[in-house]
Amino acid sequence: MIHTPAQTDLDAVLARLSLHHEIDRLYAAYAAALDDRRFDDWPLFFTEDGHYKLQARENFERGLPLALIALESRAMMRDRVYGITQTIYHQPYYTRHVVSAARVLSSEDGITTAEANYAVFRTRPAGVSEVYNVGRYIDELVRQEGALRFKSRLAVYDSEMVLNSLIYPV
Amino acid sequence: MIHTPAQTDLDAVLARLSLHHEIDRLYAAYAAALDDRRFDDWPLFFTEDGHYKLQARENFERGLPLALIALESRAMMRDRVYGITQTIYHQPYYTRHVVSAARVLSSEDGITTAEANYAVFRTRPAGVSEVYNVGRYIDELVRQEGALRFKSRLAVYDSEMVLNSLIYPV
Amino acid sequence: MIHTPAQTDLDAVLARLSLHHEIDRLYAAYAAALDDRRFDDWPLFFTEDGHYKLQARENFERGLPLALIALESRAMMRDRVYGITQTIYHQPYYTRHVVSAARVLSSEDGITTAEANYAVFRTRPAGVSEVYNVGRYIDELVRQEGALRFKSRLAVYDSEMVLNSLIYPV
Repeated sequence: MIHTPAQTDLDAVLARLSLHHEIDRLYAAYAAALDDRRFDDWPLFFTEDGHYKLQARENFERGLPLALIALESRAMMRDRVYGITQTIYHQPYYTRHVVSAARVLSSEDGITTAEANYAVFRTRPAGVSEVYNVGRYIDELVRQEGALRFKSRLAVYDSEMVLNSLIYPV
Repeated sequence: MIHTPAQTDLDAVLARLSLHHEIDRLYAAYAAALDDRRFDDWPLFFTEDGHYKLQARENFERGLPLALIALESRAMMRDRVYGITQTIYHQPYYTRHVVSAARVLSSEDGITTAEANYAVFRTRPAGVSEVYNVGRYIDELVRQEGALRFKSRLAVYDSEMVLNSLIYPV
Repeated sequence: MIHTPAQTDLDAVLARLSLHHEIDRLYAAYAAALDDRRFDDWPLFFTEDGHYKLQARENFERGLPLALIALESRAMMRDRVYGITQTIYHQPYYTRHVVSAARVLSSEDGITTAEANYAVFRTRPAGVSEVYNVGRYIDELVRQEGALRFKSRLAVYDSEMVLNSLIYPV
């Protein structure tokens, strides 16, 4: 097939659509893993040295380092999962993520940056569903073995209240 | 046009994008019909022998049959709509569905399985909007007369509380 | 490249996907501007004579003109932004928009009509995040200088309660 300008444009449009689609699918798969409580799958969404941070918006905007959760490798994430599932005493609850369409901000040198708004609802046993944590994902994505993975995922949440009952990653 | 390998890949990518897009549109149209209170349109999103079930997550995960609503044909759905609009005494309320991007899990033998997280907000007259029902759609879709329809739609909601005021389908 | 029927279909599918994608991106960018408090950017999402209206569902459905906010040009929007940021005394709060996939209803004569459900969450200083305003965007979009802009954006919200503390556009 001869690549005329029209065809090249077509390819470019398709590549953009395809990347965006893949990111939306990644976000949905990530949410499903957490909501289904498949916590062992959670570190696999990251690269081996991937970063995960859950930080209040106020600290994020002031450039303060304080974060509710800050993990800097899959190994740290596995420790966290062990804590969640084996050692931390807590009242269990269901989570439900509803995530907006992703915004792809840039894609160069193999790194794609993207953002999306999220709302997480919590349901405790015998309780009603309630707004739990809302905010914005700020992500760096890389391709490994054909799949997109998080080089870093930063979840910046709006509420300044310390949620001492927040146990599971968002 | 000669279908070179590149073109075949292009077609495959486009087919996947297109199917996913169509599912997202179906989900949005379904939500709009309910939120606009066009209840007579609701059964038309299903095949003639389509199934609709609204079930608590706890029952779903334990494999228990108990469900808040379980309808096994358009005819049963029409009966339900008649009940909602004509006979059941209830305080009316508005609903508003916010649905995440769909996850297409498989597509073979003419049946596509897909899932999406949803949050439904309820607003009663002179009341504030509140979280009403959050959960996951688990769907089987088939194509009929060119359009995708639900062979089955299962809405699994997180709250174990019996919502005796839940009248409308989700 | 010769445009065979197959290619024309391909182009049509791609054009539809591409438009829909562009609208979802516009919606996400609009939400991000408001949630990031970049209020000066807000009028730029509209045409110079663009309309913005925030109206209760009850008034909308009865065809009543009463609206919480009704602005009929970028100039009026800039005045509103000046009011928000400089003169109106109000307790500040964060907003977070979660928007469903868009429904494209028509696209002819250069005007695309589209709708999407939205939920806005509010977080006040030292407060929890709460459901603030949920409803439906009803939009007319036109292309200017290569980008889609709102010829009009109508946000119809479900709660009949007057939110006297609603300061920022939705």
